[in-house]
Amino acid sequence: MPIERPPFISFLTDFGLDGAAATCRGVMLDICPSARVVDISHTVSKYAISDGAMILRAALPFMPVGIHVAVVDPGVGTERRPIGIQTKRGDVLIGPDNGLLQLAADALGGATAVRELANRTWWLPATTATFHGRDIFSPVAAHLAAGNATFGDVGAEIDLADLVPLGLPAPHIVDGALETEISYVDSFGNVRLAARADALAAAFGGPGGIGTLRARIGQTSLDDVTFAPSFGHVARGATLLYVDSTGDLALADNQASLAERIAAQRGMEVRLERGD
Amino acid sequence: MPIERPPFISFLTDFGLDGAAATCRGVMLDICPSARVVDISHTVSKYAISDGAMILRAALPFMPVGIHVAVVDPGVGTERRPIGIQTKRGDVLIGPDNGLLQLAADALGGATAVRELANRTWWLPATTATFHGRDIFSPVAAHLAAGNATFGDVGAEIDLADLVPLGLPAPHIVDGALETEISYVDSFGNVRLAARADALAAAFGGPGGIGTLRARIGQTSLDDVTFAPSFGHVARGATLLYVDSTGDLALADNQASLAERIAAQRGMEVRLERGD
Amino acid sequence: MPIERPPFISFLTDFGLDGAAATCRGVMLDICPSARVVDISHTVSKYAISDGAMILRAALPFMPVGIHVAVVDPGVGTERRPIGIQTKRGDVLIGPDNGLLQLAADALGGATAVRELANRTWWLPATTATFHGRDIFSPVAAHLAAGNATFGDVGAEIDLADLVPLGLPAPHIVDGALETEISYVDSFGNVRLAARADALAAAFGGPGGIGTLRARIGQTSLDDVTFAPSFGHVARGATLLYVDSTGDLALADNQASLAERIAAQRGMEVRLERGD
Repeated sequence: MPIERPPFISFLTDFGLDGAAATCRGVMLDICPSARVVDISHTVSKYAISDGAMILRAALPFMPVGIHVAVVDPGVGTERRPIGIQTKRGDVLIGPDNGLLQLAADALGGATAVRELANRTWWLPATTATFHGRDIFSPVAAHLAAGNATFGDVGAEIDLADLVPLGLPAPHIVDGALETEISYVDSFGNVRLAARADALAAAFGGPGGIGTLRARIGQTSLDDVTFAPSFGHVARGATLLYVDSTGDLALADNQASLAERIAAQRGMEVRLERGD
Repeated sequence: MPIERPPFISFLTDFGLDGAAATCRGVMLDICPSARVVDISHTVSKYAISDGAMILRAALPFMPVGIHVAVVDPGVGTERRPIGIQTKRGDVLIGPDNGLLQLAADALGGATAVRELANRTWWLPATTATFHGRDIFSPVAAHLAAGNATFGDVGAEIDLADLVPLGLPAPHIVDGALETEISYVDSFGNVRLAARADALAAAFGGPGGIGTLRARIGQTSLDDVTFAPSFGHVARGATLLYVDSTGDLALADNQASLAERIAAQRGMEVRLERGD
Repeated sequence: MPIERPPFISFLTDFGLDGAAATCRGVMLDICPSARVVDISHTVSKYAISDGAMILRAALPFMPVGIHVAVVDPGVGTERRPIGIQTKRGDVLIGPDNGLLQLAADALGGATAVRELANRTWWLPATTATFHGRDIFSPVAAHLAAGNATFGDVGAEIDLADLVPLGLPAPHIVDGALETEISYVDSFGNVRLAARADALAAAFGGPGGIGTLRARIGQTSLDDVTFAPSFGHVARGATLLYVDSTGDLALADNQASLAERIAAQRGMEVRLERGD
């Protein structure tokens, strides 16, 4: 007997916690009362498209197949396009064309089609220039979830290659060191890098042979970084390098905030070297 | 075929995020397991009745018809009355009689009846003096949502004119300038005014003829404010005046926090004048 | 006619608001689409097991019977055991064996059985060393909620007496004064004590005879504390001692943050004495 699955909508914004995201949720539930709406985060740093993209990439592969709405949208009310991306897994990602949806689409098997949300049939009857989350993205998502509209109904197809890219840099190996940058700082103060475990192996050999590393981040040098599977393998307050739950490399202090200690921020350059 | 709609409850408080609001939600779902409960906000500034009222007014017209619980309640445990307000749209607003529910009732077509939540049948069996959100407001709302109680059952009718008013000031036009005050500061640092677009037209003529304005807020003078439809129509960091998504006038810096820059707070006086 | 009750899962963590808790929620709903998942709090102070335990104790007795997942887990990835506790009320508490679940189990009638979540059948197929909330606790909870697994299926029984204790100190009466400590500081800045109303009666006689008290907290002396049923019974800004909505004694300033004023923190010693 198959499990009956209600329509699923996930929702991420930088709207904060003072009612704007809930208003969108109200719009969705008014159109699709049976939807299960899951808030991924509404405290994405304001205008931080890259942060939103990283959170989506980490969360969506663990969510049910469905409609995923994401709005970090400094260009609201300008020419930037509202888009929908259909994924190989069967999801539709809804949001602005500013790079926000790209990593998540990749994590869900890749984009199979992209459309501009130009068909006003699925918008709210009255729209504003400053709240497309409420007026465009939420109602389109809910009409898709409810089956009122199909993906083909939302607007004309556009070319995947025309989408605004996110532009995360690839890591480099230079003189035996791994050069990358901070891609995300989480609420624990753990510092994620724009590099995956294979980059570490390429630079230093397999995990077994890595030993102690030095990490240079901005003006800071962390001289005693242990590569370990999790926090509890180093002393409280000591720094570790680990493969985090998204598969990315990350730096952390055990039971403390590394980011606060060294004032780490997204985009800072990081160089990992063999320790002395 | 009509869409089947589960009972709908929205919920706003200043309880913060450490479990008190969730406890209320548990009470609601224990009484009405089929209810769809949407949290509007639980991070309303502590005791800020006016902030709560502004958020409710913006959110509720976009929510399904239902029961809407709001608790910003500095007078809990004193003589202030717990009330329910029935609206023309068909909603029931539940909360303390302190002005919190007034703007939302107006936005939902106006109040058609008001009752004091005096019938203890619908309260929790044991009540405390400090947590009426859990002990009175949530169970009454859930019994209404579940159809266990009708609005007439919650307690005796009281006179709409006897409710504690909120008391937002009306804007004034003085010497060709528009005088009003800050009614709300949102999480982006956008500064909403206690005036709507028609006040602007009355002071300066239609939007087409407004041109550049000067805004005086406390000790600050913003000398180059552009009236624009949305953020992206001015340079990054520049200040605009716009009609926000609630229909109110608002001031903002594009992609930055105006409120932080000028230390704007609710209640500060604002004077909008023609620029030089 | 019995009310149809969907499977109920509550969820508390220190994961913050940037997507990790929502990812767990996605895992739960993917396994048990019919579950009602209520977030109790995800902003528990990082690693603060005692804070998490206090919030759970206050919330769960008001929640429907169900599965309750709690993750404040500084020892993730080490030898600490993942456990399930069955309660007399019929709930199952899921989380790490570090004291987090103890007060809640007591509040739900006490533990009737404890098991280690060792059966990997109910974990995600791939697990990481740093995100057991996603990989172990959430899927086990969802399989229990869905009825895929019974409590007996999750792993071998372990001895209740072997669980890691929380270790809240009992209050003492010394020279006619009540000595205790701060057990929790809530988002209003109200200061909860590790003592209940009966300790007050034992120290000073019944509530009627208490009069004005002096509270010594760290280096601070609050010389004019009124025992009162709720905030509104003292002047705005005045300090009261009251029995809070959990049944514990608490100190607060009416409509202000006592905790901020005196820099109160969990674990600080408190001495309540008769006033002059």
